[in-house]
Amino acid sequence: MRQAGAEGPADGPGEAMHALVERLYPICRSITGDGVRATLDIIGEYLPLTRHEVPTGTQVLDWTVPEEWNIRDAYIADAHGRRVVDFAASSLHVLGYSEPVATTLPLSELRSRLHTLPDHPDWIPYRTSYYRRTWGFCLSQNTLDALPDGDYEVRIDSTLADGHLSYAEHVIPGQVPDEVIVSSHVCHPSLANDNLAGIAVATQLALALAAETPYYTYRFLFAPGTIGAITWLARNQDRIDRVKHGLVLACAGDRGALTYKQSRRGDAEIDKVLRHVLAATERPHHIKEFTPYGYDERQFCSPGFDLGVGSLSRTPYAGYPEYHTSADNPDFVSAAAMADTLAVCREAFAVLDRNRRYMNLSPYGEPQLGRRGLYASLGGRSDGQEAQLAMLWVLSLSDGEHSLLEVVDRSGLPFTAVAGAADALHAAGLIKA
Amino acid sequence: MRQAGAEGPADGPGEAMHALVERLYPICRSITGDGVRATLDIIGEYLPLTRHEVPTGTQVLDWTVPEEWNIRDAYIADAHGRRVVDFAASSLHVLGYSEPVATTLPLSELRSRLHTLPDHPDWIPYRTSYYRRTWGFCLSQNTLDALPDGDYEVRIDSTLADGHLSYAEHVIPGQVPDEVIVSSHVCHPSLANDNLAGIAVATQLALALAAETPYYTYRFLFAPGTIGAITWLARNQDRIDRVKHGLVLACAGDRGALTYKQSRRGDAEIDKVLRHVLAATERPHHIKEFTPYGYDERQFCSPGFDLGVGSLSRTPYAGYPEYHTSADNPDFVSAAAMADTLAVCREAFAVLDRNRRYMNLSPYGEPQLGRRGLYASLGGRSDGQEAQLAMLWVLSLSDGEHSLLEVVDRSGLPFTAVAGAADALHAAGLIKA
Amino acid sequence: MRQAGAEGPADGPGEAMHALVERLYPICRSITGDGVRATLDIIGEYLPLTRHEVPTGTQVLDWTVPEEWNIRDAYIADAHGRRVVDFAASSLHVLGYSEPVATTLPLSELRSRLHTLPDHPDWIPYRTSYYRRTWGFCLSQNTLDALPDGDYEVRIDSTLADGHLSYAEHVIPGQVPDEVIVSSHVCHPSLANDNLAGIAVATQLALALAAETPYYTYRFLFAPGTIGAITWLARNQDRIDRVKHGLVLACAGDRGALTYKQSRRGDAEIDKVLRHVLAATERPHHIKEFTPYGYDERQFCSPGFDLGVGSLSRTPYAGYPEYHTSADNPDFVSAAAMADTLAVCREAFAVLDRNRRYMNLSPYGEPQLGRRGLYASLGGRSDGQEAQLAMLWVLSLSDGEHSLLEVVDRSGLPFTAVAGAADALHAAGLIKA
Repeated sequence: MRQAGAEGPADGPGEAMHALVERLYPICRSITGDGVRATLDIIGEYLPLTRHEVPTGTQVLDWTVPEEWNIRDAYIADAHGRRVVDFAASSLHVLGYSEPVATTLPLSELRSRLHTLPDHPDWIPYRTSYYRRTWGFCLSQNTLDALPDGDYEVRIDSTLADGHLSYAEHVIPGQVPDEVIVSSHVCHPSLANDNLAGIAVATQLALALAAETPYYTYRFLFAPGTIGAITWLARNQDRIDRVKHGLVLACAGDRGALTYKQSRRGDAEIDKVLRHVLAATERPHHIKEFTPYGYDERQFCSPGFDLGVGSLSRTPYAGYPEYHTSADNPDFVSAAAMADTLAVCREAFAVLDRNRRYMNLSPYGEPQLGRRGLYASLGGRSDGQEAQLAMLWVLSLSDGEHSLLEVVDRSGLPFTAVAGAADALHAAGLIKA
Repeated sequence: MRQAGAEGPADGPGEAMHALVERLYPICRSITGDGVRATLDIIGEYLPLTRHEVPTGTQVLDWTVPEEWNIRDAYIADAHGRRVVDFAASSLHVLGYSEPVATTLPLSELRSRLHTLPDHPDWIPYRTSYYRRTWGFCLSQNTLDALPDGDYEVRIDSTLADGHLSYAEHVIPGQVPDEVIVSSHVCHPSLANDNLAGIAVATQLALALAAETPYYTYRFLFAPGTIGAITWLARNQDRIDRVKHGLVLACAGDRGALTYKQSRRGDAEIDKVLRHVLAATERPHHIKEFTPYGYDERQFCSPGFDLGVGSLSRTPYAGYPEYHTSADNPDFVSAAAMADTLAVCREAFAVLDRNRRYMNLSPYGEPQLGRRGLYASLGGRSDGQEAQLAMLWVLSLSDGEHSLLEVVDRSGLPFTAVAGAADALHAAGLIKA
Repeated sequence: MRQAGAEGPADGPGEAMHALVERLYPICRSITGDGVRATLDIIGEYLPLTRHEVPTGTQVLDWTVPEEWNIRDAYIADAHGRRVVDFAASSLHVLGYSEPVATTLPLSELRSRLHTLPDHPDWIPYRTSYYRRTWGFCLSQNTLDALPDGDYEVRIDSTLADGHLSYAEHVIPGQVPDEVIVSSHVCHPSLANDNLAGIAVATQLALALAAETPYYTYRFLFAPGTIGAITWLARNQDRIDRVKHGLVLACAGDRGALTYKQSRRGDAEIDKVLRHVLAATERPHHIKEFTPYGYDERQFCSPGFDLGVGSLSRTPYAGYPEYHTSADNPDFVSAAAMADTLAVCREAFAVLDRNRRYMNLSPYGEPQLGRRGLYASLGGRSDGQEAQLAMLWVLSLSDGEHSLLEVVDRSGLPFTAVAGAADALHAAGLIKA
């Protein structure tokens, strides 16, 4: 059950995001196949998407696009023909990328193909085997325990064949060609927080940014995890230096506090922006050092690319018991939490978009602000206004080495005051970007 | 009343400084005019000064030297001709740079020209309007409250006309042309701590340094705030690289603890020296980061110059209720506090003058100190004397990268021991500066 | 008495080291002379040594090899001919490098030649006068106090004459010519912790390393303190850049916690290694900053050489009352403590030998570990194994800037896991050293 009171208004972006999560939830996604395409079709109803289909066998960096996997039906049936495990009930029931099978086995032989979670006997685990051919089923421990010995009919009606890897992009042109990428993985089946919530936040974020003319060009990437990001990187390697900043959105909807995982660099501008926004808004939050495990920041931050890409989550990767189980369902994510994640993204990109390094064009002594109408005329008073102090700080630190965020850090003034001061000084011709 | 016991001896520099404060107190100073000249005349009785008069209209960096302001009389008189506010009683009564006026107004119209401090109803505030032509009076709230409605004669007998901006310098030649500037502003009217105490400490400091042959050349600057520092910088721009260190003296006489505000660089040598001296002498004190607000360190540290200039105060800028009011009178400053500020300045410049980076001329292994008479001959004892340890430290860190102050920081030894060791090693030809 | 329970097994390296300490203890060593040669003879029974004899008068850096000192007998005898102080009872009784003397003096005149420890009236102090010609005796305060006034026969049968300074080296060839030096001073007479324990640990360490083929070439130096290290440096100045790391072993056997004193650089690789090993093994220990006082790290770390040489002790230099007295006898050091020092040395050199900077040869995105058999095939599980995580960390940080120890610091993984991952990745051709 969603917690009352923690939810946003019924018609707000939170509810819209939750509705999208619920709509996408039943689809069986994997790293390739029709489930990904169906997901991109639905996202495409919100945002115009550029779709890409990359053939099986294409070399992408150190990897090769695998065969496409599609599945129509799967079940385990008992001696009476009753489906005791049924893919139709949950897409998690089949081990991802299972090869087709149609056989009858005694339970004793079948057991090694069955994955359960003994510690959470009601939950179905999520398991895959992308790169080693096998098949299997996932089911609750309780279901397994209730199965009598005997023969079971096993059927997986799947296809593993040449096909394509599918991903999509949505670009919001900015004032400059420098890009911010926002990436969310679309390869997980019926798991709400990981990563339908990330997809939903990305979608609403794109809608919000499209209503403005942002400074940066924003590129939203909806691709399968790992192989999708690697494919995108391989196909964009020659233009990768356009990517100045980025954010991976994952686990964006649970009720825990926000977690920002820094880029491998640790002092990339996106790291400074997120640290600032999370601290300034006084939300409870966690800042984590980069680790080479997690989501697609692994690829974007690999040492050859080393992009300034961080990752925003609520409870992070593997940090909650429901992670990668059937308990990560639409009730596990909340409209309010997704709205909060969205709000932080919007604040962060608002700061990123205004964060500039300026040069003071009158750096010898203070320029005379008064004759430019930028300074209170009555001296002797100590109640210096924030706006005037912000101008002095921007002038003092506009030496090409300090960004506005660093002015904020040094001065303790709010970003909006500092950015407003920079705008006023820029309009007066006293600084240049 | 001055606190008994906290004062220095009656004939010490503290009393001399307090006498100078009392003598300068009645003069009405501003950023230009005869009050500044009278002040420089009195300082000139202590120190030979080089005087400068810069004509109105001279372009100085981004600024222009303003018209000169002089004032002979000013008052508000009631219907009976009684002066209810009288410039003769306090130079603070007139808004600084008031244009001349001679009129009669009802109190209701006059009110917008009257400045008071409702929270301190006995005190007269200090206000100026240097760069926007206007006029006004400052008075206590109690005085204002006692005024009956009715007409008042208002008269300000001032002149705003082409003239000059006045400032003065006193130079103590050192062993090297590299300069230390000591700056104190002379533009404030009857305010004792801000900045007659600074002027008094600077004057005594110059007398003390003149009795020695310091290493650096010391340049004392007595100039009006902001426009005076800007004028000096404009006229010395082509020789500014001679200025290696500097200190702005302001609010140097109240009974609060010392405050050192670091230069914009934060790690300038003057910053290290003051941090060391204040810590080593175990005085209660505060170290503050640079901010682009305050006194003339704003100009010296503007990003184009970025000089290693800090600021030494007791209670800093705007940090006490008496700031910029008639309560900042000679009783507010103490001889002992000024003597203490002076002592710290002398200690700091003694350290600065001896702080050098040396090169070990025998850097491969330790040189044999014993045969040079620099080492105790009896081995096996663990009671290594401070002087010998100091020599080993100086030898170890004399690689051109560490100053003696850094040797002090690393070794924990007193500066005098380290500097003495450097002198001995220098005399023995083992290190060079 | 040795503490029961703190000792190692009777046949372990601890007991072997203690036996060596006891054997070397009676010999009267100094910075030159037959005592050093006898000591090197005994070490040579364990390790093949290259012996060096450097003639008196040889210029070594800023120093000159002094005359060789040898002593056969020395005593103070009372009026009855009884030896009240006798060199035969303790080599400490004679001031080191005493010139010969044969005379009779009243006690009153003799007193200035007698060194005692009033605070420890039972102990004999250790004193020397290497570079100023004199003579003297060291004795307990109690012995001195018991001497009646009167004449005493004084005799020191010593020789100060042209001869040699003796030292020895033992080299264990490694896979690369880059060297690690392990230095222990051999100039102290009957003092167990300072430095027979260091000699004993160095000897056992060399035996242990010789049983392997280490990566680095290990050079063990047994030389007198100060002048010996300076002599070695002078004679190896043109090949000193082969020395990449080093460790001075001193005070290696008392029962106190281990102390690592960092090199002058403070961030040399040997510093990182010792900090890591001491922290990772959870021993109580101390890490100290470099000081230019102590043992031969003073010479190796002099600014001209500035080698990455630290010093490992238990209770450090002058940190225990027994230091440089007759109480630093074989009972003061324990087999268990020496075994513990040895163990840390072995762990440290094991880490140093494997610590490498690698380059990721597949730095764009992650390489596909699965097809190389380096990754578990079953996805979706969060129980990432340490080995796999270690591989991801090594790949992420193998950019030529991070050593494996820095991977350990960033990842929090054990060194062995990280080094094992590097081995696996290297074998798979994914990284190069």
